[in-house]
Amino acid sequence: MIVTTTRTDCERLDAEDPLAHARARFRIPESVIYLDGNSLGALPVTTPARLSEIVEKQWGEHLIRSWNMHDWIDLPARVGARIAPLIGAVSDEVTAADSTSVNLFKLAAAGLRINALRRVILSERGNFPTDLYVLQGLDDLLGENSELRLVAREEITSALDESVALLVLTHIHYKTGALHDMRAITEAAHKAGALVLWDLSHSAGAVELFLDRDRADFAIGCGYKYLNGGPGAPAFLYVARRHQHNLRQPLTGWMGHAAPFEFGDFYRPADGIMRTLCGTPAVLAMAALAEGVATFDGIAMRDVRNKSKALGDLFLALVESRCTGTGIEIACPRDASQRGSQVALRHPQGYAVIQALIARGVVGDFRAPDVLRFGFAPLYTRYVDIWDAVGRLASIMRDENWRDERFQARAAVT
Amino acid sequence: MIVTTTRTDCERLDAEDPLAHARARFRIPESVIYLDGNSLGALPVTTPARLSEIVEKQWGEHLIRSWNMHDWIDLPARVGARIAPLIGAVSDEVTAADSTSVNLFKLAAAGLRINALRRVILSERGNFPTDLYVLQGLDDLLGENSELRLVAREEITSALDESVALLVLTHIHYKTGALHDMRAITEAAHKAGALVLWDLSHSAGAVELFLDRDRADFAIGCGYKYLNGGPGAPAFLYVARRHQHNLRQPLTGWMGHAAPFEFGDFYRPADGIMRTLCGTPAVLAMAALAEGVATFDGIAMRDVRNKSKALGDLFLALVESRCTGTGIEIACPRDASQRGSQVALRHPQGYAVIQALIARGVVGDFRAPDVLRFGFAPLYTRYVDIWDAVGRLASIMRDENWRDERFQARAAVT
Repeated sequence: MIVTTTRTDCERLDAEDPLAHARARFRIPESVIYLDGNSLGALPVTTPARLSEIVEKQWGEHLIRSWNMHDWIDLPARVGARIAPLIGAVSDEVTAADSTSVNLFKLAAAGLRINALRRVILSERGNFPTDLYVLQGLDDLLGENSELRLVAREEITSALDESVALLVLTHIHYKTGALHDMRAITEAAHKAGALVLWDLSHSAGAVELFLDRDRADFAIGCGYKYLNGGPGAPAFLYVARRHQHNLRQPLTGWMGHAAPFEFGDFYRPADGIMRTLCGTPAVLAMAALAEGVATFDGIAMRDVRNKSKALGDLFLALVESRCTGTGIEIACPRDASQRGSQVALRHPQGYAVIQALIARGVVGDFRAPDVLRFGFAPLYTRYVDIWDAVGRLASIMRDENWRDERFQARAAVT
Repeated sequence: MIVTTTRTDCERLDAEDPLAHARARFRIPESVIYLDGNSLGALPVTTPARLSEIVEKQWGEHLIRSWNMHDWIDLPARVGARIAPLIGAVSDEVTAADSTSVNLFKLAAAGLRINALRRVILSERGNFPTDLYVLQGLDDLLGENSELRLVAREEITSALDESVALLVLTHIHYKTGALHDMRAITEAAHKAGALVLWDLSHSAGAVELFLDRDRADFAIGCGYKYLNGGPGAPAFLYVARRHQHNLRQPLTGWMGHAAPFEFGDFYRPADGIMRTLCGTPAVLAMAALAEGVATFDGIAMRDVRNKSKALGDLFLALVESRCTGTGIEIACPRDASQRGSQVALRHPQGYAVIQALIARGVVGDFRAPDVLRFGFAPLYTRYVDIWDAVGRLASIMRDENWRDERFQARAAVT
C-alpha cells in the first residue's frame, strides 16, 4: 500500500511515472478530472485529423475505390492485429467488428457447437447485463438444444459439471471491479470438459492479459472503454488458433465468406479468424478505433498494470483516511491483485454524491442501487487527479449544509 | 422514352430538373462522373463539420455525459424516424443499428417465430449473397426447426405453399436492377400464409417505397448506398406496427431491454421497435448516417423516382444509339417501371471495360462474370453526366488500338 499524505507526494509520483508522457496522446478537458475512462475512453489527439482524412479524402474524393486504394476491406484484420498484443494473443486470433453483444452471440453459439455433446452455458449472476441478455436470447432461440445456468460468483467452479459446454465470464466485474483468475478458472473449466469465453470489456487496455498463455478459448471485448475508440466503437473478438478451423458461428454475412466478391449463392467460411466477420466493416468507426488502439504504441502493459494498481491503492487509502465517518464504504477488493483498473464505493445517496462530484469537475459514474464507480486509465490518469478527486469527495461529504439541502433535492431525481 | 441527341438537350434537362439544387448538398470530385452511388453514396457537405463537432466537442469535451447531454442514446430511434418517410413507414416502425446482415438475422429469426407453425424460409437464387449467407447461417443454427428453400426468380410466387413461413426478397436486384412488385408479391405471400421480409438496400433513397401501404411485414436496408451515410454506415430495419408487440428477435443486447440502466439479470424486451436493438449504438457512424439521410430533407421521393427513371432511360437510349456493334448488351429491364435506379450492361470483357472507364473518370462497377453496373443517385447525378459517361464508353469501345492492347492485359487481371 502506498502511503501518501500530501499533494506534493502525488506530484512526485507523476514526475517519476514511466507512463507520464502518454497523457499527451489525449485531449483531456482542463476543467475535468476524468475517472470514467472505463465507460468511455478519452479522445486521442490523432483521431480528429485521421477521421477528417478518412471522410474528406478517402470517402469524399476516392469514393468507392477506397475499399482497395486505402485497404478499407482489411480494417477488421488490421485493427484486430493491433489489439492482439494488448491481450496476449497473436495477430491472427483477433479481429474488430460489430458490437460486444453481437460478438458474444457469435462465439457463444460457436462454442456450443464445438462442445456439441453438452448443452449448458454457465455464467455468473450479476454479470454485465448485455452478456446475460445475449445468452438468454441465444438460449431462447435454441430451445431444447441449450440451457443457460446462472450461479453466484463463488459457485462458479463447483458448478462446472459434465453438462457444461461453455463458461461465459466477464474477467473484471463492471460494478465491483473484482477480477477473476483467468488462468485458474480456465484450467478448472478445461478439466471439467468445458470451454471458456471471456468478456474483456473492462480488462483490455487496463490490465495485463495472457489469453494464449492462459489457454482461453474465446474472448470478446469493448473498443470504447480503455481502448479509446470513441462512443459505440466496434468491438473485438478472439478465437484461439486451435478452434478456428472448427468454428461455425451463425452470423454468416458476406465479409466472413472465403471469397465475398465471387458473389456466389452458398456460404463457404473464410479461413481462420476472418470467418467471424459478418457485414460490411464500419469504416469511420473502425478508423477511430485504430487511433484509440494506437495510444498504446510502445507502451508496456506491465507498466499499465503497475500504475493501475498504484492509482487504485492510492484512491482507496485516501478515501479511508479522508472520508471516515461520512457513510462512504469501500465496495471493491482492497487487494490490487484482485481488482481491475477501477474502484467502487458505496453510499446510500450514491447518485446524489456522484452528481455533486460531477458538478465539481470530477467525473465518475453511478451504478444502481448505491455504487459510485471510478475508473483509472493509466495512460492519462495522474496521481494528482486521484488526490484532487478524493479531496473533493471528502469536502462534499463533510459539507453539512449541502447534505441537508441539496442531497434531498437531488436524491429525489434518482 | 426520352429521345435526346445532344449534350445541349441534357443541359436543358438539368436546368429544368426540380432536384438540380440537391447536388450542392454533396462534395463530388470535379474530375469524376460518379455512377456508383448504389455502392457508396457521395459525401454530404455537412458531414465533415458534424463529425468534427461530435468528435471534438461531444466526445472530446463532454465525454461520457454526452450520452444524455447530446442524446446519443436516442440516435437509433432518431435516425430511424428520419428514414421512415423515405420508405413509406411511420417513425416508430424504423430504427438504425448494426449492419444489414445482422439486422436480417434478427428479423428472419423473428419472422420464423411469429409464423411458428411453419418452418420454411423462401428466397431467390441469385439474391444478394449476404442475404443468402445469413439465411444459411440461421438455418444451420436452427437445424430441424427451419428449412431454407431457394428458387428461381420466376418461381417465387408459385413456391409460396403452406410450408413457407417467411419470404425474404431483395426489392431491387443488386446486379440487374430488376425490381420486384412489392405490393403484388406481399399480397400473394400473405394469401399463402407467409410473412415477407424485404431487403431495401438498393431501394431506399432511390425509388418510392410504400411499406405500410403495401403491407410489408419486415424490412432491412443499407445506410451507405443511396442514403449517403458513409462507408460501412449502420443499417436500418423496419417492423410493421402489427408485429412489434409479438416480436422476439434473438440478438437481445442491453439496448433492446425495457430498462437497460436498471442493470438487471433478466432480459425484458423494450416496447415497440426498440426491442430490435442489440449493443451500444455506434455514435460516430450514426451521426454520419444522420447527415446522409438529411440530404433528403424537403425532397419528394416522387421527384427522385421520376428523375431516376429518366436518367436510366437516357443512359440506355444513348447506349443503344452510340454503342451498337461494340459487343455491349443491355442486361437490365428496359421498362423503367421494372427497374431500380441502376442499369446493367454486359460485355465479355466487362472488367476491362470498367477499368478503362474508371481511368477516364467514369466510376461504375463490375459484377462477375460480365456485368457493368451504373447507379444513378438522383440527388447528384446530372443528365450531362449520363451523356458524358456513355460518350466515354462509346469511345472506349470504338478504340481498336485500345481493344487490342489494353483489353488483353487488363482482362488477365480478372
